[in-house]
Amino acid sequence: MEHFADRLIRCIKGKRSNAVAGLDPHWSLIPEKIKSAAIKERGRTLAAGAAAVTRFLTGIIDAVAAHVPAVKPQIAFYEQFGPSGLEAYRAICEHARARGLIVIGDVKRSDTGSTAAAYAAAHLGGIEIGGETLEAFPVDAVTVNPFLGSDGVAPFIDAAAKAGKGLFVLVKTSNPSSAELQDLEANGEPLYITLARHVARWAEPHAGSRGYSLVGAVVGATFPEAAREIRGIIRHSFMLVPGYGAQGAGAADLKPFYNEDGLGAIVNSSRGILFAYRRPEYSDRFGPDAWQRAAEQAVIDMNEELRMTAKGV
Amino acid sequence: MEHFADRLIRCIKGKRSNAVAGLDPHWSLIPEKIKSAAIKERGRTLAAGAAAVTRFLTGIIDAVAAHVPAVKPQIAFYEQFGPSGLEAYRAICEHARARGLIVIGDVKRSDTGSTAAAYAAAHLGGIEIGGETLEAFPVDAVTVNPFLGSDGVAPFIDAAAKAGKGLFVLVKTSNPSSAELQDLEANGEPLYITLARHVARWAEPHAGSRGYSLVGAVVGATFPEAAREIRGIIRHSFMLVPGYGAQGAGAADLKPFYNEDGLGAIVNSSRGILFAYRRPEYSDRFGPDAWQRAAEQAVIDMNEELRMTAKGV
Repeated sequence: MEHFADRLIRCIKGKRSNAVAGLDPHWSLIPEKIKSAAIKERGRTLAAGAAAVTRFLTGIIDAVAAHVPAVKPQIAFYEQFGPSGLEAYRAICEHARARGLIVIGDVKRSDTGSTAAAYAAAHLGGIEIGGETLEAFPVDAVTVNPFLGSDGVAPFIDAAAKAGKGLFVLVKTSNPSSAELQDLEANGEPLYITLARHVARWAEPHAGSRGYSLVGAVVGATFPEAAREIRGIIRHSFMLVPGYGAQGAGAADLKPFYNEDGLGAIVNSSRGILFAYRRPEYSDRFGPDAWQRAAEQAVIDMNEELRMTAKGV
Repeated sequence: MEHFADRLIRCIKGKRSNAVAGLDPHWSLIPEKIKSAAIKERGRTLAAGAAAVTRFLTGIIDAVAAHVPAVKPQIAFYEQFGPSGLEAYRAICEHARARGLIVIGDVKRSDTGSTAAAYAAAHLGGIEIGGETLEAFPVDAVTVNPFLGSDGVAPFIDAAAKAGKGLFVLVKTSNPSSAELQDLEANGEPLYITLARHVARWAEPHAGSRGYSLVGAVVGATFPEAAREIRGIIRHSFMLVPGYGAQGAGAADLKPFYNEDGLGAIVNSSRGILFAYRRPEYSDRFGPDAWQRAAEQAVIDMNEELRMTAKGV
C-alpha cells in the first residue's frame, strides 16, 4: 500500500503541478443550460440540482484531469441538495478517482472521540455490515477541525494510517475572521502556532519514504507571515493552501509555504477554475459557453504561475 | 412565525422535561434482530445499514416522544452509510417533527463565509431551484463550530433568524481533550470565556418574547465550573448540554447550567436512552428485547432526575 504522502508527491511530479482544483459547485454560477436541462428532466427538485452538479463537475474533472494531481470537493455545496447531493458527491469522487486524481474531501469534520470515529469511518475508513467492510464516500484524504483537541483528531489519523489515506488539520484558515480565535496569544504565542506544534506531534510517527507525513495542515494563502512561522514547525507535513485567486492571494505570496526541497504545499483554487468561463479573459477567447475549455486553460495558467515559486514541482 | 426559543420553552413546559434524546445509532449496539432482518432484505449493503437505523430510531422516537421536547440526531452516525444514511437522517428528522418534537441536527459544521452559507442553506434554510425553495434536511436547529470566527457563524444566524430556527455554538465541549484548545489562557481568560462573550454578542439581537435568543451554546455537563462562568456571560442563551449519563456527569452537576428562572439548559443523553435495553436495570425488568420500553423508561427516569435541579421545568 503506497503511503499517502508518497502518492501525493508522485502525482505532483507526474503532472508537474501542485495545484488542486476545488470542486465547489455554487449553484448560481453553474451554466444556465446545464441547470435548465436538469430541471426540464427532473422538475424543480433537489434531484435536479444534484444532476446538474454531477453533469457540470464530471465535465470539469475531464477538462482538468491531465493537469492537476488532486481535486478537492467541498461537501457543503453537495449537502444543499440533501441525500441526492451526497449521491452527487460520491459520483464526483468516484469519477475523479477513475481519472487517477487524488480526492481530498473538504469536510472539516470534528467531534468527541466516538463520534469522530464515526466520521472517520464515513470519510476515510468503512463500516462493517454483516462481515463486509463498506465505503460510504470514496476519498483519499479529508480536512479536520481541531477545536475539540487530540481525541477528536486521533480517530482520523488511525483510519488514514490503516487505509493509506491522509488528512489536513485546520491550523490557520484563509478567511478574514480567522484571527478572532486562531491568532489569540496564549502561552506567549498565537494559537495557530500551538496548533502547528500539535500537528507536528501528530504527524511525526506517520512519515512516508520521502519524509512527509500523512498528517498535513490547512494554512490560508492569505497569511504568508503566519505560514512562514508554521512552516518552521511542521517540516514533515504538506500544507493544503486555500485562498489563492478569488480570495486575493497570488503566487508571490506562496514562497513561505514550501520547504527547501520546493515541496510541501498544494494550492487550491475553486471559483477561479470552475467558473473561468464567466471571466472575460477566457470567454473572449473561447466563447461564453466553453466552460470546459476555460477551466482547462485556467488550470494551465495557474500551473505556470505556481511553478515560479514551487521549485520542487 | 414562533421564535425558536419561545417554541423550545413551550415544549419544555408542555412535557415538563428539559431532556434531549440523542439519536446516535452506534451500529454495534443496535438490536441484532433489526440488523439481521435488514441484511436479509437488502444484503450486506449500506442501504441495509440505513434501513436498520431508520427502523430502530423510528421506534425509539415513538417510545420517547411523549416525554421529551427535543431529539438530537448526530449526523456522523448516518454519514457512515453514505447517501442512503443521509436518507435515513432525513427520514428520522421528518418522523420526529411529525411527532411534534424539536429536531436539533448535531452537525458541528463550520467553514469560511460562502461555504458556511452553503451549510446554512443545507441545514437551516433552503436552496432555490427554478424559483422553488427546497429544504435539504428538515431540522429546527443545528450545532456550529466557532473555530473560523464570526464570518463562519454569521450565515447560520441569518438563516436561523429567517426561518424561526436556532443554533448552538460550541463553547466548551464535554470530551477530555477539550482543554487542549478551549482552556488556553489568552487575554487573561480561558478561550471558552472569550467564546462565550462572542456568543453573548451574537445572541443579543435575536431574543424571543421570553428573553432567550435563538443563538445558544454547547457546554459539556462534565465541566460544571466552566459552566458557572459561562452562565454569567450568556444570560440570554440556552445551553445544550452533552456528557450526561454515559460520559460521567450526573444531575447534581447540572445546577450551574441553569439561569435563576430555572430555565436555560437542555440536557442530552444518547446511549443512556437508545441502548437502555442492554443495561441490566432495564433488561431484568422488561426482558432483553424490549428496547422501546427500556428507552421510554430511561427517559422517564432521566426526567425525574433532571427535575431535581431544573426548577423552571
